[in-house]
Amino acid sequence: MTELEYIDLKECILAENEGDAQEVRDLLKEKKVFLWNIMSSPGSGKTTFIIDIIQRLGEQYRFGVIEADIESTVDAEKMQALGVPTVQLRTGGGCHLDAAMVMEALKKMPLDALDIIIVENVGNLVCPAEFDVGATLATMLLSIPEGDDKCIKYPLMFTVTKAVIVTKMDVAPYFDFNFEALEHNTRRLNDDLRIFPVCVKNGEGMEAVVNWLTDQFSSYL
Amino acid sequence: MTELEYIDLKECILAENEGDAQEVRDLLKEKKVFLWNIMSSPGSGKTTFIIDIIQRLGEQYRFGVIEADIESTVDAEKMQALGVPTVQLRTGGGCHLDAAMVMEALKKMPLDALDIIIVENVGNLVCPAEFDVGATLATMLLSIPEGDDKCIKYPLMFTVTKAVIVTKMDVAPYFDFNFEALEHNTRRLNDDLRIFPVCVKNGEGMEAVVNWLTDQFSSYL
Repeated sequence: MTELEYIDLKECILAENEGDAQEVRDLLKEKKVFLWNIMSSPGSGKTTFIIDIIQRLGEQYRFGVIEADIESTVDAEKMQALGVPTVQLRTGGGCHLDAAMVMEALKKMPLDALDIIIVENVGNLVCPAEFDVGATLATMLLSIPEGDDKCIKYPLMFTVTKAVIVTKMDVAPYFDFNFEALEHNTRRLNDDLRIFPVCVKNGEGMEAVVNWLTDQFSSYL
Repeated sequence: MTELEYIDLKECILAENEGDAQEVRDLLKEKKVFLWNIMSSPGSGKTTFIIDIIQRLGEQYRFGVIEADIESTVDAEKMQALGVPTVQLRTGGGCHLDAAMVMEALKKMPLDALDIIIVENVGNLVCPAEFDVGATLATMLLSIPEGDDKCIKYPLMFTVTKAVIVTKMDVAPYFDFNFEALEHNTRRLNDDLRIFPVCVKNGEGMEAVVNWLTDQFSSYL
């Protein structure tokens, strides 16, 4: 009985979220703002990656950031230090962002003065994949130490994202990460998925990501 | 309105789960079985760690394993290869185990022929921490590449577990993982939390874990 009740509610929540996501998309279209949702496991390097992207593209585009965290504000403080408008969403135990939360954050942002808003989602490969936040683009990070089999265990995340940024390539020699296995297994889930191996620390692979992103941005903005 | 409805239901689910967890505990007590819940992020090395523990202690104790996975059965197959009774729980998108799911798994296990059942929870630092599955002992794994700041971002996990096994110590030279910071930050959350740095691959630190575990087991069995 419990399980049935739970599933019903989940369907309700997801249906309501779809409506909210459409509202987010309508607002963003009106304001001509690109919303980029970045998801990953805890500790795969989202914050470091976002800072690097803003440093590389900050002259071309006006960035804002929405930081989702269960409790802390450490990441938001790093973003503010960069001088970009930042809204911290504290989920208070919640394991993902939904579109209504993102809408609340957007209301606090200077939308007319922004081109791109990056959402750093809660570190979690499961629930964030279920909730469309109204993003123009969804990508995920997968770090080398997590292993190449994550797409077998958390398939939904790999189907809702357009690109996998494989981070921490500098430590690849110390792990058995098989890119062929990753490509083979993700192809079955998402034929269009792009895979970008990078190391933010030494810059490896970042140019390819930036070029691809610029294409994504310019087809919308 | 949406948010209120959601929170109410969550409370109902958690309250119902508490009752289910007590039923699990009663059954385990009757059968004299120790239930060990292991949680962590995706890719922190749960399966490898569990296999190593069973290999080290398999002559002393009769192990069983409950494998939680969203979709795949790869981990359960590895456990079966070890010759231990294994039940695979496929959560079908669900981000955590609850006590009712664990009870279903227990019903399929030869409880009279087991001393210790290890639960490999879904790879997620958020939701599994909220759901007491009726375990005798809850521990977590935190891998070096995830970083020392996870307890700031996912504090609940660090309060509900009795020990943090810090895995992948062999790659510590390539990451800035600060053990003093981890100890300082976790002490505020959970004064009794034990921290065990290990490398399963080369055996570093495993003896200390095994000694501590044996104490935990023998105080119950």
